[in-house]
Amino acid sequence: MHPAIEDVTLESVLYALADSTRLEIVKKIAGVGCGLNCQSAAPADLPKSTQSHHFQILREAGLIKSERRGTEVVNSLRCTEIEKRFPGVISSILKASEKAKKR
Amino acid sequence: MHPAIEDVTLESVLYALADSTRLEIVKKIAGVGCGLNCQSAAPADLPKSTQSHHFQILREAGLIKSERRGTEVVNSLRCTEIEKRFPGVISSILKASEKAKKR
Repeated sequence: MHPAIEDVTLESVLYALADSTRLEIVKKIAGVGCGLNCQSAAPADLPKSTQSHHFQILREAGLIKSERRGTEVVNSLRCTEIEKRFPGVISSILKASEKAKKR
Repeated sequence: MHPAIEDVTLESVLYALADSTRLEIVKKIAGVGCGLNCQSAAPADLPKSTQSHHFQILREAGLIKSERRGTEVVNSLRCTEIEKRFPGVISSILKASEKAKKR
């Protein structure tokens, strides 16, 4: 379900983030620092199936970790691992995305 | 043919780079600093039509500028503009890609 960090490719990370909905989800999860359940992280107006699809792509790209806690699934960013493997990539993308939004 | 820098989106840049062939092309162009013609920048074993397709995506994403000089088309990276619009994004991606290759 979650790839080992050494199997995570730069291309799959970039592909996962090359979508405004997924970029929003990652920003939300990154913003809280700790885990966020699926419902709070995804845009409220998205159908459940679309949400699942986006979370799957993010998970398979190695960007997020999803853990079941009781009845809900909690997602967290694999921030430290990704930052170590691809230094500066995620952080600069999240920063650029914030800046672009403010315009 | 070339989008104005203010119309370039982070998503389209990430999508354009989320492909190993296009990442190779961009790295090659970035490596020489100045312009490089299509034939030298693209992997030699790619069919012409595939090359054109990749260059089109890179151009439309705002990453490269293609200029006709006599009989050849010379491509250059819109490095300064992109770096100004999305600070650190391209540079960290190119660096991470180099590092990943060495492993």
